[in-house]
Amino acid sequence: MGGDFAPAAVVEGVLLAKEWIDANTRVVLYGHRDALAAEFDRLGGRIDDFEVVHCTEVIDMHDHPVKAVSTKTDSSITVGFQHLAQGKIDGYASAGNTGAMMAATMGMIKAVPGILRPGIAAYVPTGEKGYNLLLDVGLNSDCKPEVLVQYALLGSLYAQFIFGIEKPRVGLLNIGAEPEKGNLLTKQTHELMRASTDFNFIGNVEGGEVISNQRTDVIVCDGFVGNVVLKEAEALYVLTRERGIKDPVLDRFNFENYGGTPVLGVNAPVIIGHGISTGRAINQMIHQTANVIRTQLCDKFKRAFANG
Amino acid sequence: MGGDFAPAAVVEGVLLAKEWIDANTRVVLYGHRDALAAEFDRLGGRIDDFEVVHCTEVIDMHDHPVKAVSTKTDSSITVGFQHLAQGKIDGYASAGNTGAMMAATMGMIKAVPGILRPGIAAYVPTGEKGYNLLLDVGLNSDCKPEVLVQYALLGSLYAQFIFGIEKPRVGLLNIGAEPEKGNLLTKQTHELMRASTDFNFIGNVEGGEVISNQRTDVIVCDGFVGNVVLKEAEALYVLTRERGIKDPVLDRFNFENYGGTPVLGVNAPVIIGHGISTGRAINQMIHQTANVIRTQLCDKFKRAFANG
Repeated sequence: MGGDFAPAAVVEGVLLAKEWIDANTRVVLYGHRDALAAEFDRLGGRIDDFEVVHCTEVIDMHDHPVKAVSTKTDSSITVGFQHLAQGKIDGYASAGNTGAMMAATMGMIKAVPGILRPGIAAYVPTGEKGYNLLLDVGLNSDCKPEVLVQYALLGSLYAQFIFGIEKPRVGLLNIGAEPEKGNLLTKQTHELMRASTDFNFIGNVEGGEVISNQRTDVIVCDGFVGNVVLKEAEALYVLTRERGIKDPVLDRFNFENYGGTPVLGVNAPVIIGHGISTGRAINQMIHQTANVIRTQLCDKFKRAFANG
Repeated sequence: MGGDFAPAAVVEGVLLAKEWIDANTRVVLYGHRDALAAEFDRLGGRIDDFEVVHCTEVIDMHDHPVKAVSTKTDSSITVGFQHLAQGKIDGYASAGNTGAMMAATMGMIKAVPGILRPGIAAYVPTGEKGYNLLLDVGLNSDCKPEVLVQYALLGSLYAQFIFGIEKPRVGLLNIGAEPEKGNLLTKQTHELMRASTDFNFIGNVEGGEVISNQRTDVIVCDGFVGNVVLKEAEALYVLTRERGIKDPVLDRFNFENYGGTPVLGVNAPVIIGHGISTGRAINQMIHQTANVIRTQLCDKFKRAFANG
């Protein structure tokens, strides 16, 4: 039921996903059965092809996140996260209220032991192919150096198992290429990252490189900077659309290509979708969630952080 | 002698400036007379149309900024700033070593009394016309809320007198529109800005709005975030060029249109040019410097901050 175009976009998305889903994958829909059935009818799909968990309540964009999760006990977010916590499902994705998703994640799924602060990541395309995984993009707007160092490992593991890159190259977003450049946070972080053997640190990258460089796979920054940078990249795409520009490289900035924003460092796969997710974006998000489940990424996190 | 294409680009720039300069404006060139004369010859211009202060030394991009200013006493930067401090010239612009420019500015020109930290500002275009003045774009990477509040007033005065906007609209770069959103810095800054009557604060703006919104004239952020945002916007322009896209709105992202980066909050006009400034950029920078002189912007700063 989540997102600006729900439940229409969600049903469109799962019908697209039906094309590629194999027999080992189950898509479970959380929402009001009647509302979902009406969309399936409209789109000529069969609701019986999917499991539906009937939920009578909806957490909308105006609800207070933390309160809503605990009071709207029969909402698709609350029930879905309960099922995820209980192991009835293996991953949860939604384009619904981001704050409620995060409240449910932190309250019911919880951080992997040893992880100071989970983060959220986004894909930023770079040229004709490839992208940078940028994190954090808004969960933690004030970070300590130790948190950024953990983000480097989280992002590196994501790139390794989801992108299939053997030794992902990790960059630190900064205001100069030289190690001594930066603010207090990035100067300290640079030193810690350089000393770490947990990931392949290639040094500082500058603001322009987020959307252009081919020398990193993961770029780490605090959630304030990451959020600003991501929204600027999104605005870039909107601007080219408004100008009627069609270009394969610039079209790659359409977030619909990538699915949602994975929450990294929690005990089960959670993917947060853009509020304005369309059916195409929902389909990508299902694909992404299935990948995170299949690669057992959360287990990799647990193992990597088990030794502190 | 400053910049990657000096002195050729500088001479090209002053020859372009000659077209519009009036009898009340003097352009004084600091540099090696022979090197300048050779460029004038090459371009078919007359060096005698300009005043030349012969300098035998050059601070290049590899020099240590602070050291170079004090040891290369006959460099164009050191001599130029001495003349500015002595009132022999009214403003100084260069595309040379930025660190040396700032060292000379802080050492010889100094901050206006009452100003905690001077800042540097950049123009970011928004759509078909207009731009945001973004500051700080890299001078102070760790800012206190009180410094950002001063930037709001500095930017507002610049927009008022240089852009001719009666009541410039000031936004705070943040990760949400609501006043309570942000990191520790922006939350505190938002409260202080809202309480101030020195400028027209319109609230928070998000990352995408830097390059798209028409509801602000000035956007304030710390120097780390501003530098990253500016470099991303510059990379956007490079990307569209690489893709062979010609579009009047996207072409406005070419920094050459705007001249240089003014240093705001110091006792005399200083404009820092991009290292890769071309003749066209140098011409714009001369124009910009003349405007800052003519509008007596530094006096406005002094008056605005005289009462603490």
